[in-house]
Amino acid sequence: MENVKVVSYGIGVIGRRLANHLLDKKGVEIVGAVDINPAIVGKDLGEILGREELGVLISNDADEVLSRTKPDIVCHTTMSYLRQTYDQFAQILGHGVNCVSTCEELSYPSATEEGAEYASKLDEMAKEKGATLLGTGINPGFLMDTLPIVLTGVCTKVDDIYIRRQMDAATRRVPFQKKIGAGLTVDEFKEKIAKHEITGHVGLEQSIKMIADAVGWELDEIKVDPVQPVVLDHDAESDAIKVPKGHNAGSMQMSYGIRAGKALITMDFKAYIGASEEFDSVTIRGEPPINEKTSPCVHGDYGTIAITANMIPHVVNAAPGFVTMKDLPPPHATLTHMRKYLK
Amino acid sequence: MENVKVVSYGIGVIGRRLANHLLDKKGVEIVGAVDINPAIVGKDLGEILGREELGVLISNDADEVLSRTKPDIVCHTTMSYLRQTYDQFAQILGHGVNCVSTCEELSYPSATEEGAEYASKLDEMAKEKGATLLGTGINPGFLMDTLPIVLTGVCTKVDDIYIRRQMDAATRRVPFQKKIGAGLTVDEFKEKIAKHEITGHVGLEQSIKMIADAVGWELDEIKVDPVQPVVLDHDAESDAIKVPKGHNAGSMQMSYGIRAGKALITMDFKAYIGASEEFDSVTIRGEPPINEKTSPCVHGDYGTIAITANMIPHVVNAAPGFVTMKDLPPPHATLTHMRKYLK
Repeated sequence: MENVKVVSYGIGVIGRRLANHLLDKKGVEIVGAVDINPAIVGKDLGEILGREELGVLISNDADEVLSRTKPDIVCHTTMSYLRQTYDQFAQILGHGVNCVSTCEELSYPSATEEGAEYASKLDEMAKEKGATLLGTGINPGFLMDTLPIVLTGVCTKVDDIYIRRQMDAATRRVPFQKKIGAGLTVDEFKEKIAKHEITGHVGLEQSIKMIADAVGWELDEIKVDPVQPVVLDHDAESDAIKVPKGHNAGSMQMSYGIRAGKALITMDFKAYIGASEEFDSVTIRGEPPINEKTSPCVHGDYGTIAITANMIPHVVNAAPGFVTMKDLPPPHATLTHMRKYLK
Repeated sequence: MENVKVVSYGIGVIGRRLANHLLDKKGVEIVGAVDINPAIVGKDLGEILGREELGVLISNDADEVLSRTKPDIVCHTTMSYLRQTYDQFAQILGHGVNCVSTCEELSYPSATEEGAEYASKLDEMAKEKGATLLGTGINPGFLMDTLPIVLTGVCTKVDDIYIRRQMDAATRRVPFQKKIGAGLTVDEFKEKIAKHEITGHVGLEQSIKMIADAVGWELDEIKVDPVQPVVLDHDAESDAIKVPKGHNAGSMQMSYGIRAGKALITMDFKAYIGASEEFDSVTIRGEPPINEKTSPCVHGDYGTIAITANMIPHVVNAAPGFVTMKDLPPPHATLTHMRKYLK
């Protein structure tokens, strides 16, 4: 049975983990690799991944790779914002090639006006060229949108939805711990926020808009609060970072989908060193009420890699166009030869 | 905006609750009602539901109702087995009308050879007539199949899946409490099992097969154990039934999807008066591991009504044919005018 041919576009932290996972899957073959990092361009992807040589050289010329390899799909893991990635998607679709991406804004672009314009152009291109484009990931893409949407499916009535994700940053990559400002004083944290060196989680408004559109709520406003410090009344630490009592242990962020002054959708996102419990939860006030919890929370990096790979067949099978997680069939693990899931 | 026109086929307990819910929804109109119960044939559906008259008389002539009303979809809630419902589906599809049904075996007919044959014929008819047919419900249809499938979507690896549903029967309809033999002595319970007066839950093999097919596991065997009594070491009671210590409080049933002597999928289903906790849970051993729980468990009747109504737009929008929950887009609540969800 023929392998499904993938081009890995973006060989950063997530791109490498995803490529490693794809290489371990049955029926998947990486036929090309694209990145602009001069330190790895020209090197063999296998070598960069610490595996045996694959005969796939990392290239900074996406056009050449796509023309030559004619993949079934591109797995794209470069940047979070559509203004950074739009040209890359346009180029991929220009070759008539399907694409699944972890670009956060792509998960539900119409959350913003600018995003809606990008998505509309990408949809047109995709249809013209007969390719399909999807944005996914663990969050946005699953935990705070697709999963809550699915859970509303058993409700006759929904008053409001409250979604929480609480992560113990000590269990995550050190760059992630630094990204959320763990170990800084509160003043240092606020300064980094002001300088945009610490930014909020990308994707909260996308998740809110996806849920609202799925269930049919017209929101007046999507409100994303500024990211806030998390200060504990005791010392905490990870292997890499000490957080003295009174210092910042991580970050938290609230966001809301509001209609008539009422939060119909609330997202409560916390990641800090020393969290007493790790969980993802969805609480739906409605009929019947739903009180769902996954504990410990789903690991962000592994979950993102999994769902990106697992959505490959749904993207390849879909009608051409730009699609979102609420349009395609439900995600599922892909535990056998990837070709077997293709129509 | 034009209403979505529904024929209610089956005006029993679930059919009535579903009809009541549909009448409360925006953009849904019940244009016909079918049942064979002589006590209600010829009566106004509204009257039977304890509402104002609808001008919809319950008929035992499905052909006449379908020809005259030309509905967008039939909501079908008659029986559990395809050998009972096949002719009804064939008739509905013969009119080129879409159908969503709570028939348990229809949720995943290919769990059995007989079911696969029925499904293949129904699929052919549906395609020929340009209609779509779906079997759904809370269980089978959601809790023990669609939801676990969705959760595997964030896994790179799945070793096995353990799914539990534990219900406190005291919170359910009295006929349900009787159906599971609550209050009987263990001997009486076993006698009723032998006489097929108490039967197991219908749908466990369908749920197992749906999961296996979704993730790509070829099972050697689906094993559904006989239903067993649940005997407590203390007295228990519901409003309607007393269960003395040593008597039967309800029923439990285990089932397994087996490959190479190992249970890859386990379903653990318990319903009894006096259950200390009500919950639905999905435990996935894999990477990342998933430990998900909904507590209290989702109410079966309300959940079934909800998902049946909520799947209406997905069924109407789908390409013709027989489809299952793993083929259609993820379920979601339908909180605005039903027409707005149609393509």
